[in-house]
Amino acid sequence: MSGSGTLFGIGLGPGDPELITLKALRLLRAAPVVAAFAKQGRTGQALGIAGPHLLPEQRILRLEYPFTTEVSIHDPRYARDMSDFYDQAAAAVARHLDAGEDVAVICEGDPFLYGSYMYLHDRLSHRFPARVVPGISGMSGCWTQADTPITHGDDVLTVIPGTLPEDAMVSHLSRTDAAVFMKVGRNLPRIRTALIRAGLLERAILVERGTMEGAHVARLADWPEDRTAPYFTIVLVPGRQGVR
Amino acid sequence: MSGSGTLFGIGLGPGDPELITLKALRLLRAAPVVAAFAKQGRTGQALGIAGPHLLPEQRILRLEYPFTTEVSIHDPRYARDMSDFYDQAAAAVARHLDAGEDVAVICEGDPFLYGSYMYLHDRLSHRFPARVVPGISGMSGCWTQADTPITHGDDVLTVIPGTLPEDAMVSHLSRTDAAVFMKVGRNLPRIRTALIRAGLLERAILVERGTMEGAHVARLADWPEDRTAPYFTIVLVPGRQGVR
Repeated sequence: MSGSGTLFGIGLGPGDPELITLKALRLLRAAPVVAAFAKQGRTGQALGIAGPHLLPEQRILRLEYPFTTEVSIHDPRYARDMSDFYDQAAAAVARHLDAGEDVAVICEGDPFLYGSYMYLHDRLSHRFPARVVPGISGMSGCWTQADTPITHGDDVLTVIPGTLPEDAMVSHLSRTDAAVFMKVGRNLPRIRTALIRAGLLERAILVERGTMEGAHVARLADWPEDRTAPYFTIVLVPGRQGVR
Repeated sequence: MSGSGTLFGIGLGPGDPELITLKALRLLRAAPVVAAFAKQGRTGQALGIAGPHLLPEQRILRLEYPFTTEVSIHDPRYARDMSDFYDQAAAAVARHLDAGEDVAVICEGDPFLYGSYMYLHDRLSHRFPARVVPGISGMSGCWTQADTPITHGDDVLTVIPGTLPEDAMVSHLSRTDAAVFMKVGRNLPRIRTALIRAGLLERAILVERGTMEGAHVARLADWPEDRTAPYFTIVLVPGRQGVR
């Protein structure tokens, strides 16, 4: 590895640029190349958060997702296309590392919790020195925005991707004290139905853009059924109260 | 509330003092009074993390737990003693708020995720302005320390307190993709047995003092059965690999 650059996976936190850590900021600013996943034609979530912290001399490497509209994850093309895309993204990052340049891959939330950075880490960390800096997760930003403790005492917490089938959601809800639904977006109608079936709709809270400008918190029961939610929306079911 | 101080719940992150956020540092240093839960005769986890960041003129309010040795949470005295203790701690904080002083209650990890701060928030946030700053959770510090992505793609993640009965642990493990055991300490033998019964011992990773000095990562299968683990130890079961 002599002479090669170091790969950094930098967690930026949930959205508010001030929720970056001292360590993430120090390592981010020390990297000559800053890489970020983004959709074509968009700034990208991570670049939006990191923007205020970047220095003029830092070069940006955009890793652009191949789809302008989202292909369903149930479509067989999805896994193949995504795997090819991550291979290409890793190769683009590796070119800088091979040239001796450190690359900071910036990630909203926490890199090792449902983060796209992991697909680069899996491909590159055996070839190059790699170092990850954790970040505050998006879900933590959301329960803080909602001013709602998520777990007390002996509560079990289950994090459920919104992409799961409805029956699986109901099964998980019936066995946990607290729940967080990630990847809500177009899955909101199914999540709502699962919460109704589990008798938990009244406890559910929807948070859009937690810790960001335009943040919005609502009881899910008050959310119009025909109203869509953006991808970064999270639905929370706070746990029981513990010792009071 | 005119003239009263503001209550801040400040998440300090998992242990490395550099993993505090810019926002937490700014609000921590602006408070004349810094309050922290701690055991008698110990520095306390939160004060240890915040130490390097405090200013000489800040006053420390220690909220000392009533037990020098831990009473079992299954003992009926526990809930009553703890509730009384939190009432007294809230009263001590309220005296400063009533006098117009802001109080920063510092918390290791994330205040709203199994944090003791919640017991103050529940008691005081209806009487005083209250504001919470999220922090990186202890479990995130541990999976980062272990260099292990915890969840990819559609993985379900279940966070299981080590205080649960063994059968409940096995039931949760059988239905999740990834798991985190909190509050390990003296519960480690039961956690190990539950993991063996669920066929997951080989995947389990034990992390002591994640992101702190003296951090240690081991495969649980390699951990001697008669070796104890400190309270802040976490056991991780990483999820399936997603798209590769």
